[in-house]
Amino acid sequence: MADPLSRAAAEAADAADPLAPFRSRFVADEAGVLYLDGNSLGRLPVATRDRLAAVTAEWGERLVGGWPDWIDAPVTAGDAIATVIGARPGEVLACDSTTVNLHKLVGAALEARRPQVLVVDRDEFPTDRYVLEGYAQRDRLPLRSNAGEPQLERGDLAVLSHVNYRTGALRDLAALQARADAAGATMIWDLSHSAGAVPVDLHAAGAELAVGCTYKYLNAGPGAPGYLYVREDLQDGLRSPIQGWFGQAEQFAMERGYTPHAGIRRFLAGTPPILGLAAVEEGARLTAEAGIDRLRAKAGALTERMIALHDAWLVPLGFGLATPRDAAARGSHVAITHPQAWQITRALIERAGVVPDFRGPDAIRLGVAPLYTRHVDVHDALQRLRDLVALGAHRKLDPTPGRVT
Amino acid sequence: MADPLSRAAAEAADAADPLAPFRSRFVADEAGVLYLDGNSLGRLPVATRDRLAAVTAEWGERLVGGWPDWIDAPVTAGDAIATVIGARPGEVLACDSTTVNLHKLVGAALEARRPQVLVVDRDEFPTDRYVLEGYAQRDRLPLRSNAGEPQLERGDLAVLSHVNYRTGALRDLAALQARADAAGATMIWDLSHSAGAVPVDLHAAGAELAVGCTYKYLNAGPGAPGYLYVREDLQDGLRSPIQGWFGQAEQFAMERGYTPHAGIRRFLAGTPPILGLAAVEEGARLTAEAGIDRLRAKAGALTERMIALHDAWLVPLGFGLATPRDAAARGSHVAITHPQAWQITRALIERAGVVPDFRGPDAIRLGVAPLYTRHVDVHDALQRLRDLVALGAHRKLDPTPGRVT
Repeated sequence: MADPLSRAAAEAADAADPLAPFRSRFVADEAGVLYLDGNSLGRLPVATRDRLAAVTAEWGERLVGGWPDWIDAPVTAGDAIATVIGARPGEVLACDSTTVNLHKLVGAALEARRPQVLVVDRDEFPTDRYVLEGYAQRDRLPLRSNAGEPQLERGDLAVLSHVNYRTGALRDLAALQARADAAGATMIWDLSHSAGAVPVDLHAAGAELAVGCTYKYLNAGPGAPGYLYVREDLQDGLRSPIQGWFGQAEQFAMERGYTPHAGIRRFLAGTPPILGLAAVEEGARLTAEAGIDRLRAKAGALTERMIALHDAWLVPLGFGLATPRDAAARGSHVAITHPQAWQITRALIERAGVVPDFRGPDAIRLGVAPLYTRHVDVHDALQRLRDLVALGAHRKLDPTPGRVT
Repeated sequence: MADPLSRAAAEAADAADPLAPFRSRFVADEAGVLYLDGNSLGRLPVATRDRLAAVTAEWGERLVGGWPDWIDAPVTAGDAIATVIGARPGEVLACDSTTVNLHKLVGAALEARRPQVLVVDRDEFPTDRYVLEGYAQRDRLPLRSNAGEPQLERGDLAVLSHVNYRTGALRDLAALQARADAAGATMIWDLSHSAGAVPVDLHAAGAELAVGCTYKYLNAGPGAPGYLYVREDLQDGLRSPIQGWFGQAEQFAMERGYTPHAGIRRFLAGTPPILGLAAVEEGARLTAEAGIDRLRAKAGALTERMIALHDAWLVPLGFGLATPRDAAARGSHVAITHPQAWQITRALIERAGVVPDFRGPDAIRLGVAPLYTRHVDVHDALQRLRDLVALGAHRKLDPTPGRVT
């Protein structure tokens, strides 16, 4: 049997991959670049490129007459997302940014449930911490910074990422939701690093509230709209703190005071971005077509290969693994640490044609997007990384971390 | 001399129009349609269509490597808007929706100035009223509904549209800002119906805060990002109530607590929508290229023709004028009223190839967008309107107003 770390083994895995045809559904980038940053910005689907051109043309031709077909886009795109996060139709809206959506749900939960303590992970994605910090300051509520497994108490309002943006660690959503329910705490899930990459079943878990991002594994493009989820039975008991005309019960009865729309639409605010929502819908559909279980299986195999290559090739060069070794306990990216992580990241991008990303102070994230990442990509990227660091090619670069996204 | 209401007179005015060449800078719509709703959704500029395709391709090719060029888009697009509203570079951000931006500025002013009363026009655009209603309820502040000229007192926080969305009435921004300053009140301007249509000089007026929309006269497309303006000297004393990672001082020093960025960027929240912002920049540049004074002069002539034709042809059919007769006191649309306004609007769109819009209970808005509306368009549209109503063609339609935008 061939060496499982050989390129031949990677080629064989690709040949057996039932998702391999999906790679051609994306626009090709510069030849030879190994893209391992789909966890930051996903690739452009061919269907999305065509749809964006079609919606642009529709604007030009139909003008304001296009609105009857556009006005439901946040719900239509939200329903497409619902299929990949285990939500029901009418429970998800695609709109605004993830930050603004989290601001809405935290504000709504504060008003309805009067929590006494806000809880966030110490290493939670910054925007989630910042939103809670803002509310804590405004309402003079304590903000508890949690490390490790969240300890939830009655009256807590917690925000937690399903997959940690830095380490890739995957939380047990159903178990933690059950613990929150038992404790009498409110949980808002951030699915940014899990939707489209790992199975999410909000309904089965009884999850109440969630937000997420579409430009990572859902491939909706730079700054595409985020989304929010509110369990159906809770919708009419919650109010968005941002009252806008798209959330109004009778939007075009313009002389009235504000009454929230029934159902999920009450969480809309201003006029929805039609181009961005078209991209969200296409991206979510492509993911649903591939099937989240197949995506998850392939991602597990890819990160398994990555960790094995890391152990064999990179540990001797001073690297460490920040991601759980148990495939069931991680998402779709692997974080490796190194004291010169910043310089290595730059050298990989500028000299080796490998695109990972850097997360300070010392982590390199290597993401696999099973819709388009191949086993040979993982193999070749780690080989280039190994050779570059072995040669010390990164040492000449400025060690001061710069602006990255 | 020819009859000033004749088609020949309209043709002569078009022949003498220095802005006539700008019409070809827009994508043509269905042949023969007379589009008088640029005040709701502007046309698609050719440059914007091409730019959207280019940015989409850039996403596909450069992937996450595009971010260093995209990350300043809210400021770049904001600076482009600044040139048409008399603001300085670094005073305007394009981001989020108009509603969300207003929510940010009202929240920031509430925290910094502790106003005692919120003030809004009774017939202000709904989303503006809804935002204030939300804050009034949250903070248990009185919300004073104003009718006519706003009476401002010390400690008031008022939101006012520069041009009323319904009647087209234009406020004297400089005079009202001076009155607000003298009274010790805070004014937030909504420029949605004025930016790109009438001269706005925020700097000369000493305006403190403003928001606006880009999909009307700035032609940035359905649901394109809105913008906000904060006078430079006030920026560092105000905080957005929505704290997100793009507003953080050191965005990529991710382990820190929230510290607002210096200057206008503190009003950013989540990841900015790159496609939408490209459209905003193109639209604002096209307006700047035409020149706001020339646009204003042409719009005045177009609405003057419209009102003259209304008086001659429509008053005998039961129409009334809701827009000021003084050209200096109106923006770029004319509202006419009729008891069957809804049915007439539908009949115009469905049977006469004229696209106005309806604003309940009884108004038809006829907008002129001087970048592309011709004098013959105004003439022909009012002629079709006259003939349609004279024939009673609208009477067979369902009188129940439906969903429109």
